[in-house]
Amino acid sequence: MTPVLTVEEIEDFLAREFPQINAGGRVFTCVSVAPGTATLRLHPDESHLRPGGTVSGPALFALADVAAYVALLAHIGPVPLALTTQLNINFLNRADPVPLDGVCRILKLGRSLAMLEVSVERADTRQLIAHATTTYSIPPAKNDAVK
Amino acid sequence: MTPVLTVEEIEDFLAREFPQINAGGRVFTCVSVAPGTATLRLHPDESHLRPGGTVSGPALFALADVAAYVALLAHIGPVPLALTTQLNINFLNRADPVPLDGVCRILKLGRSLAMLEVSVERADTRQLIAHATTTYSIPPAKNDAVK
Amino acid sequence: MTPVLTVEEIEDFLAREFPQINAGGRVFTCVSVAPGTATLRLHPDESHLRPGGTVSGPALFALADVAAYVALLAHIGPVPLALTTQLNINFLNRADPVPLDGVCRILKLGRSLAMLEVSVERADTRQLIAHATTTYSIPPAKNDAVK
Amino acid sequence: MTPVLTVEEIEDFLAREFPQINAGGRVFTCVSVAPGTATLRLHPDESHLRPGGTVSGPALFALADVAAYVALLAHIGPVPLALTTQLNINFLNRADPVPLDGVCRILKLGRSLAMLEVSVERADTRQLIAHATTTYSIPPAKNDAVK
Repeated sequence: MTPVLTVEEIEDFLAREFPQINAGGRVFTCVSVAPGTATLRLHPDESHLRPGGTVSGPALFALADVAAYVALLAHIGPVPLALTTQLNINFLNRADPVPLDGVCRILKLGRSLAMLEVSVERADTRQLIAHATTTYSIPPAKNDAVK
Repeated sequence: MTPVLTVEEIEDFLAREFPQINAGGRVFTCVSVAPGTATLRLHPDESHLRPGGTVSGPALFALADVAAYVALLAHIGPVPLALTTQLNINFLNRADPVPLDGVCRILKLGRSLAMLEVSVERADTRQLIAHATTTYSIPPAKNDAVK
Repeated sequence: MTPVLTVEEIEDFLAREFPQINAGGRVFTCVSVAPGTATLRLHPDESHLRPGGTVSGPALFALADVAAYVALLAHIGPVPLALTTQLNINFLNRADPVPLDGVCRILKLGRSLAMLEVSVERADTRQLIAHATTTYSIPPAKNDAVK
Repeated sequence: MTPVLTVEEIEDFLAREFPQINAGGRVFTCVSVAPGTATLRLHPDESHLRPGGTVSGPALFALADVAAYVALLAHIGPVPLALTTQLNINFLNRADPVPLDGVCRILKLGRSLAMLEVSVERADTRQLIAHATTTYSIPPAKNDAVK
């Protein structure tokens, strides 16, 4: 599995296709791309917190989901129509409001389905905060191009 | 399984403990409570949409998660510290920006764990949009009170 | 969603394609088929039990998985190559060694993917024993036939 | 996370508490134990195969489930009553009838809940065949002993 997009190309694609992701500032940044993997960082702001000041479940879900999407498109090229069909997430440790990395590993890249795993970790201590697995559906038109 | 809170008491609890849920207006409303079940409605605004105008994955996740929380506390009383430990969600149909109901059924209500199922449906046509199952951890202090 | 196979046709198909399912006697029987749903019954024998005499996790998994497969083929016709791509199961209550029903509801029947939900219940008391959701991949050749 | 049982002690425990696991010969063997991880090997026999000669879904489920159980008890000591409450499994590649390793990593070891991840891999080529995450409930009596 060789990436076909660079970190820069991914950030350009996200800015163009999903401007609302970073509407309130640079909330998500792509940290790295490598064969079979990609890492997305969430810089939490007020809107990601729940009472008590921890990062909310929906924000952790979004980080895992977008990290998987980024890893997928880094390997198959820009496919705006790839869709999450299923996501399972385990919440493991309290998510303090610090930068969090969604480290995604592609488990399988098929013609019409991709399965991916995401570890959500503190960027500073690498403590595991959440863990997700997800299935993405890849639209047929793109399939043909991918082979 | 008999509810111990009314719809009004649930809305008061949410307003008190989770003011940010409805910070931008009445986004979530509790529709009904009955033995073993509760329904929460999401009235999507701009912040819940993604490009193309459909309701985003994180917003559907939040609806499922909060619906489960509401069903749980309706049956065990106000427990701010109940925590989602795991959530699995399937995305089934395009989520148009109309009111969506999270219809939650309690599968099991144990001393320290609860398992719940949520159907996310259009409030108008009842079309199924997403389906989730989730596990909540119930803090020990409350356990004792619950029996 | 209208079934295209009857209970008898399903049992014939299983006997022909999956003889090992009932190798040790009539372990699985198809109880009913109706629009969007099907029910499969497990009659547990010694091989399905674990110490203590309860039905084992793998046996409950198999019941959920085969119930989903039966519901799927009841609606798209005999497709030996449909494959489980993902299954999430919650274990809710002790599974005594009595007949158990896997009551399957089709959540979505797409061209290449189907999502299904299975409640595993005691056939006598209808107590809920386990709950599963699963994704099946439908092979392309069959897709075309199904439209 | 330091293991408290050796490979030998785990095999003794399984033989004593779960004799049926290896009733038909040495089906499951514990390969290794290390901090936060353990590996269990399935040597498939006829009973684990489905038509076409691949290892069946229930057999892969059992490998993932028992591997998680082994990793858990390796770290908390022999607890016959630890129970699987939830398991999510993705099926990734065809499972040929060769020895398969369930490589388990403990994601979180709490007082009453443990979360674990299992990669099911061919023992020869390390190809990934399936991937599971699971939640185990730890009985209270043991909790106290554990700290």
